[in-house]
Amino acid sequence: MTKAVLSALIRPLVEPRLPDWVEPMWFMSKEQALEFAPQAEIGWFDLNEKEPMIEIAHAATNLKWLNSIYAGLDFMPLDVLAERGVVVTNGVGINAITIAEYTVMLMLNHAKGYREVVRAQDRHEWLFDSPGKRELSGERVLLLGLGAIGKLIKTRLEAFDMEVVPVRRSGAEGALTPDAWRGQLGTFDWVVIAVPSTPETRHMIGEAELAAMRANAVLVNIARGDVIDQGALVAALGKKQIEAALLDVTDPEPLPPDHPLWELDNAQVTMHLSGRAQTKMFQRSADRFVENLERWQRGEPVEPQLDLALGY
Amino acid sequence: MTKAVLSALIRPLVEPRLPDWVEPMWFMSKEQALEFAPQAEIGWFDLNEKEPMIEIAHAATNLKWLNSIYAGLDFMPLDVLAERGVVVTNGVGINAITIAEYTVMLMLNHAKGYREVVRAQDRHEWLFDSPGKRELSGERVLLLGLGAIGKLIKTRLEAFDMEVVPVRRSGAEGALTPDAWRGQLGTFDWVVIAVPSTPETRHMIGEAELAAMRANAVLVNIARGDVIDQGALVAALGKKQIEAALLDVTDPEPLPPDHPLWELDNAQVTMHLSGRAQTKMFQRSADRFVENLERWQRGEPVEPQLDLALGY
Repeated sequence: MTKAVLSALIRPLVEPRLPDWVEPMWFMSKEQALEFAPQAEIGWFDLNEKEPMIEIAHAATNLKWLNSIYAGLDFMPLDVLAERGVVVTNGVGINAITIAEYTVMLMLNHAKGYREVVRAQDRHEWLFDSPGKRELSGERVLLLGLGAIGKLIKTRLEAFDMEVVPVRRSGAEGALTPDAWRGQLGTFDWVVIAVPSTPETRHMIGEAELAAMRANAVLVNIARGDVIDQGALVAALGKKQIEAALLDVTDPEPLPPDHPLWELDNAQVTMHLSGRAQTKMFQRSADRFVENLERWQRGEPVEPQLDLALGY
Repeated sequence: MTKAVLSALIRPLVEPRLPDWVEPMWFMSKEQALEFAPQAEIGWFDLNEKEPMIEIAHAATNLKWLNSIYAGLDFMPLDVLAERGVVVTNGVGINAITIAEYTVMLMLNHAKGYREVVRAQDRHEWLFDSPGKRELSGERVLLLGLGAIGKLIKTRLEAFDMEVVPVRRSGAEGALTPDAWRGQLGTFDWVVIAVPSTPETRHMIGEAELAAMRANAVLVNIARGDVIDQGALVAALGKKQIEAALLDVTDPEPLPPDHPLWELDNAQVTMHLSGRAQTKMFQRSADRFVENLERWQRGEPVEPQLDLALGY
């Protein structure tokens, strides 16, 4: 029997399908998790707060495989886990569908000026012309990041007859390499950020990048707030250097009530809701975990594995 | 030389590309158009008002081909034109791209509860959960009408992994026939109306159809207001018989300020803006007209031709 220490939160979705070689130890509290942790070969330690998750990971000295519903696990002691040879599967892609849908929604809303239509309906006012007159069709998109989310964004935008140019390390299949996109920023109507948050991607869009964009460029960020130098963005939006920014994520979160981004006409702030606009995340995460248990038993690699050195 | 009586409004887009066998007569006013009309073999009589267009059409006794930027020409004296053997090309499809984009936008906005997000940003309030949690992915769409607009809607929604079932007279390619869709209304999550407005389509969605829909069904109308029995719709929305209605078109237009649709939480009213949310309609219409001139000279059929008996 393999001992698995698992959050009771996912018990209803996982327990009915647990294979008989797994001995589950369901924890209801941080204290219980800490007590069980040293016995765990398999662990799913998700809690609402980061600190206790870190503590439990340290205590899990026999751990071989750590699973999580979260995509961003850079807060975890990845160096310790690497040293102990722990395999880590994360929640990357679990909410990719809704985030991709949200991204297209934001772009369409900007293109058609839809916020003004909402406000007009609230006033019972019939508008006689559209506040926005852009078509997605025929426009060019720079897509920074072609992971689970980026791939779904790409196929959706291509169905709108947009030309989507992704950035990939390999540069394969019409993609730009990471050192090439900055030189071509001025050729895109939209810049969509779907990269992981790492030291390397922090402030990858700053004053220079904003200055290189077209006046009609729209910056869309559904990754992490800190991939944009937000001070530089507020300045650029204030002087209409670019047309707009559609920000599902900000730095910090929540955004303070007096932050200038709230008031800027050309900024949409959507409060990191993109991933939450669905009801299937727990189900998908449980499905994936159960499938991975079968792979684990057969000695096959579990998926998707976090690269503990890169942090994503 | 063939005399063409053309609105001066489209002169800048058409004149530079006019073939030498066409003798254009550009009119600036209704009076001028009426004066030129009897000489016209080819006519493009568009004005902002319907009555003078009807009058000019009557006066154009030598007309062989009438062109228009408008898709809906049911207000014109089609019987008279038919009797005179006039070929009529209309603007169907000219704004199909933006209408298809608008349709997807409305559906995404409903799915994610985006209007609440707009209102929250206006209050500088950070929401901690998404007001809408539907995913388009995996849901079923009944698409009434597979003309220029319907076809574009179909490919876009399919890119979101929706199952789109169109209604076609022929019933070909997985489509339902016009007599079959009512019996299956209860199997769809979304019902999208993209039919032309004709006596046949008037009130095609009424009390019985609304009663047959699922509680989570969302009705989307980007066709004409009168394809829905709006009184029955208001009643159905009021008692939450269906989840929502997304109405680019209403009956009448503009909707009076005290109409109940404005206030219903589960109705989005977008003021017939979908076709106006673009800047390329005149250009596309001019391009199409110039291409048709070449066909006309070669004796080939001009496109797209209105069926004068059906009215679309």
